[in-house]
Amino acid sequence: MNEAAFLARLRALPLHPGAAGLGDDTAALAGLTITTDTLVEGVHFLSDDPAPDVAWKLLATNLSDLAAKGALPIGVLLNYPLRDAAWDAAFLDGLHVALDRLGTRLLGGDTVTLPAGAPRILTLTAFGHDAPAPSRSGACVGDALWVTGTIGDAGEGLRIAQAGGNGDPRLLARYRRPVPRLAEGRALAPLVHAMMDVSDGLLIDAERMAAASGVAITVDLGAVPLAAGISDPLTAATAGDDYELLFAAPAAWKPPVAATQVGIFAAGDGLSLTHDGRSVPRPPILGYQHGLR
Amino acid sequence: MNEAAFLARLRALPLHPGAAGLGDDTAALAGLTITTDTLVEGVHFLSDDPAPDVAWKLLATNLSDLAAKGALPIGVLLNYPLRDAAWDAAFLDGLHVALDRLGTRLLGGDTVTLPAGAPRILTLTAFGHDAPAPSRSGACVGDALWVTGTIGDAGEGLRIAQAGGNGDPRLLARYRRPVPRLAEGRALAPLVHAMMDVSDGLLIDAERMAAASGVAITVDLGAVPLAAGISDPLTAATAGDDYELLFAAPAAWKPPVAATQVGIFAAGDGLSLTHDGRSVPRPPILGYQHGLR
Repeated sequence: MNEAAFLARLRALPLHPGAAGLGDDTAALAGLTITTDTLVEGVHFLSDDPAPDVAWKLLATNLSDLAAKGALPIGVLLNYPLRDAAWDAAFLDGLHVALDRLGTRLLGGDTVTLPAGAPRILTLTAFGHDAPAPSRSGACVGDALWVTGTIGDAGEGLRIAQAGGNGDPRLLARYRRPVPRLAEGRALAPLVHAMMDVSDGLLIDAERMAAASGVAITVDLGAVPLAAGISDPLTAATAGDDYELLFAAPAAWKPPVAATQVGIFAAGDGLSLTHDGRSVPRPPILGYQHGLR
Repeated sequence: MNEAAFLARLRALPLHPGAAGLGDDTAALAGLTITTDTLVEGVHFLSDDPAPDVAWKLLATNLSDLAAKGALPIGVLLNYPLRDAAWDAAFLDGLHVALDRLGTRLLGGDTVTLPAGAPRILTLTAFGHDAPAPSRSGACVGDALWVTGTIGDAGEGLRIAQAGGNGDPRLLARYRRPVPRLAEGRALAPLVHAMMDVSDGLLIDAERMAAASGVAITVDLGAVPLAAGISDPLTAATAGDDYELLFAAPAAWKPPVAATQVGIFAAGDGLSLTHDGRSVPRPPILGYQHGLR
């Protein structure tokens, strides 16, 4: 069963109103914005990624979901599999730094032991103060699609990590230590029509926002903001792990944070691509999908 | 690093006040009681345990932590590893039944894919309405120690499951489908000095309550309530997975729910055992400890 099929079946379960139909990355309860993400060794991080970087990424990916709601982080729960004392200690040192730098604190959690040889599976749940909290479903016909920062850096950083770490350290850091756009999210949340973070890839996440909003989206690959040293916008826009903010707002409006307009919403459905105005075929894979690759 | 060493290091991280020093199974935030538990295939459940029973147990073990606080369940988050479509579907059917029967709803979660051959690791986080919420640290010198239900049923049920399922179906059900003592917890919470659920074993959990409270505990093995067909109180009291409520209250007091007095708190520290009044040696292992076995 792939993720979409599983989600469809999950929606048939008894849902709390705070789940909002499981349409978003966060839930709302008691004035809190709540999100949870699981990272799997060999899927979301590499076995030889440094333990402090894994701790950073686990916290940062969750806080990125809070950022997309404009929520202020309060605290986190950690579900941790004990295995190797040195790795565990390095992970905790890294988590300490990450909690301090990203401004949140530990609330609790659970520790388990793993059978020999099992990959590490780490879960973190983050709580934020409720906020204006734009959903991903508010994009309107005529809205522009914007994205913060640059796209594809982490995808290139992953390739560098897989090749032994020889490459631009800034791109490697973008893969291993993404910085959630908390301040930008708080500035944007009261103002935009829709917002989400880019975790699985710019194109797949743009298509998801359009689908949730009941509109079509055209992304111009020529407009995708790329870091120095990255040249192929299609690879960048399908790589994922960016943790930038993707948001919809009226086309004439200028965002209060640094961001790039990459697309336009229109009546209809689905994702179309252009490159500097010319139509471009849609690639078979738009980004990362669990259960598909 | 074992669980105790890891917990000691966790306590050195920046903690939220709602973590209460990580001394308990729940956290408090925004009027909510929050708990999270991870179940690992091959550690907390068997590979051939039916998927609906695993779903039940995942929910029930979390709600048992809420029961020990007298909290009313509101909703849950699920972190689920996709692998086998038939197992996934059976799990969701079981979760549907469990959510209905145990009176709670889905708030959200995350799905991931696992590398081939990896054991399933399932995490659930449960939210309850805040309650009088007795801690595990309030037991006083002279208090009696009480426990609901019978002890050791699930341990015997595990042996039945490991032997192919031939045995008393009531004991097997106590292992696979524990029922959290939610009503009992709500009745007891405003009245008792300390309360926790018995998850790792009566003796180890009684020792933990005594240690957290700064007092000594003597448990009388002859008083441990046993189900029909179970005869060895020491095996029963170290088996774990009971999900009964263990609570401390003044010796002269009678609880408003069915429960059995199994011990008495005194000045000092540590756990002592008697059997019908005679001193009994302490076994080397008091219950389940992650990282030790």
